[in-house]
Amino acid sequence: MSSFGTTRLKLPDLQEQLQSRLDVVREELARIIAAEFPVIAEVNSHLLRMQGKLFRPTMALLADEATGGPTPRVERLAAVVELIHVATLVHDDSVDHSVLRRGMPTINAAFSHQVSVIMGDYLYSRAVIELVGLEDLEPLRVLSRVTNEMTIGEMRQLLAYDPLEFTEEDYDLLIRAKTASLLSGACEVGALRAAPEIRGALRDFGMHLGMAFQIIDDLLDYTEEEAVTGKRSGSDLREHKVTLPLIYALPRINADERARVEVLMKAAEPTDGQIAGVVAAVTRVGGLDYARSRAQALGADAELLLELLPPTPAREALSASVSYVLERRS
Amino acid sequence: MSSFGTTRLKLPDLQEQLQSRLDVVREELARIIAAEFPVIAEVNSHLLRMQGKLFRPTMALLADEATGGPTPRVERLAAVVELIHVATLVHDDSVDHSVLRRGMPTINAAFSHQVSVIMGDYLYSRAVIELVGLEDLEPLRVLSRVTNEMTIGEMRQLLAYDPLEFTEEDYDLLIRAKTASLLSGACEVGALRAAPEIRGALRDFGMHLGMAFQIIDDLLDYTEEEAVTGKRSGSDLREHKVTLPLIYALPRINADERARVEVLMKAAEPTDGQIAGVVAAVTRVGGLDYARSRAQALGADAELLLELLPPTPAREALSASVSYVLERRS
Repeated sequence: MSSFGTTRLKLPDLQEQLQSRLDVVREELARIIAAEFPVIAEVNSHLLRMQGKLFRPTMALLADEATGGPTPRVERLAAVVELIHVATLVHDDSVDHSVLRRGMPTINAAFSHQVSVIMGDYLYSRAVIELVGLEDLEPLRVLSRVTNEMTIGEMRQLLAYDPLEFTEEDYDLLIRAKTASLLSGACEVGALRAAPEIRGALRDFGMHLGMAFQIIDDLLDYTEEEAVTGKRSGSDLREHKVTLPLIYALPRINADERARVEVLMKAAEPTDGQIAGVVAAVTRVGGLDYARSRAQALGADAELLLELLPPTPAREALSASVSYVLERRS
Repeated sequence: MSSFGTTRLKLPDLQEQLQSRLDVVREELARIIAAEFPVIAEVNSHLLRMQGKLFRPTMALLADEATGGPTPRVERLAAVVELIHVATLVHDDSVDHSVLRRGMPTINAAFSHQVSVIMGDYLYSRAVIELVGLEDLEPLRVLSRVTNEMTIGEMRQLLAYDPLEFTEEDYDLLIRAKTASLLSGACEVGALRAAPEIRGALRDFGMHLGMAFQIIDDLLDYTEEEAVTGKRSGSDLREHKVTLPLIYALPRINADERARVEVLMKAAEPTDGQIAGVVAAVTRVGGLDYARSRAQALGADAELLLELLPPTPAREALSASVSYVLERRS
């Protein structure tokens, strides 16, 4: 029997039992990036203000509690995971020339492109210093591998020659690298003291959950209004990013629809009409349903892995996190 | 009695006894960035072709041999130091929009700005993975601190409000962070097995040597022809970068000369004539002599620290590296 209700889960529902530990994570984050140097402090306080919902730290803390925790140092690990996440966001925004993130100006918009490149490096090297300070190579091993995978994923996306040649296998590699690997790392560093098969199960849980998370993210870009997500819908198509719904649809649409897709991909600035046309074609042949069913299958795989854990409230919360990921609207 | 002659030293003179170890460093570098993924391989092979003279690895190997080496794993550490150096160059070129480096197109020019941001991250996370693989936290401790200092130095430069307010103290902090800290780290990771005072002496040696190195670099920008350095002379002034010769000169030049400096600093693209005028003013009041004498004093401090080491050919080569740094023309 789950203690989580049947209405749509929100992240705060999962975080309810973790409030005091998440406060520690927030304090650790503030401590880690407290700068000796005034102008860095200015950039840092901007970053702290745009702090997110701490989804990754939440997963690390739940993995910890599901495997015999709470372990106090996991809060610091959770803060480092968030720091690595923020560092990659800063560089992603710089690469994408994004101007807004979580409703606030990005570092590249508020300061400059230059500052955002160096600030990302600053945050990442601070994360490594913090991990070294824990006097344990294991979290470093996990998180350096994850960070490297993330860069490989970004590079795959940047260097893809023809987006329309992008296969479902390419897409899976991409979402593993860009999203799932860090969630997997978050769950794994929460379970470092556990037996190897439990640690492995939580790593795989995070990977499946992360892939589902990204598929839903990509799906929301097709389905949701800007008012709900805070992001202009169709923005992936606008940036010529090919995600799962379109990959599934491409071999199934008709010649007319294919032509529309090609026109959009060649347009420097696709119009709302061009985007709506492609969304309609993708929907018609079942691209959205397919993406949703793949996310659900990944979620089911993730839940199965949890059966290796003893039944605890934390295991229930991990299971509820799958529902949260699958049901979220923004 | 030094085995190094009295003619101007070149880097290959210092490297003569290290050829086989430097070959190992090159092999390690190629191994570390051997990519599973074709497009990264393309970027990597570009990086390997623009490989530099391995000055930092040379210092690490000499520090190792001067403190009881050769220790085989130091070659890997030396390769990681070079990798970190390359990662920072890739990001610096991206920040500065440079198009050439060591006579070859930069990553941002050959590929794109985006690729250079992510490639720098890739290289740095590969460096961390490699250090974790050595199963020793000490080199990680040294090199993560160094990398963080470098980002702080870059940030200082980027966020400096008025370059003409830049003091000699600011300049010292900047060159420590951007150049000397990595050379210091290179010398220190070569001496990790040594007694703490020896390890500390080599760390300080690298710091002094690195500061002298950067002062000479900044001086060459005032004095040398493009034909010698491969870099357009006056390029710092052209980019409104204020270095030691000008910092020394500013309170000593007359009102006319000061006006010329201010015009140059406000010119989006300073002319050769404007640059020549400022160089003449800086020279007249002794800015170049002052910079040279500070570099020499730092070099003398560095040499003094070597007296803590037993007399060996490696110690002699470290001492000769001071002469190399002070006498180099490019």
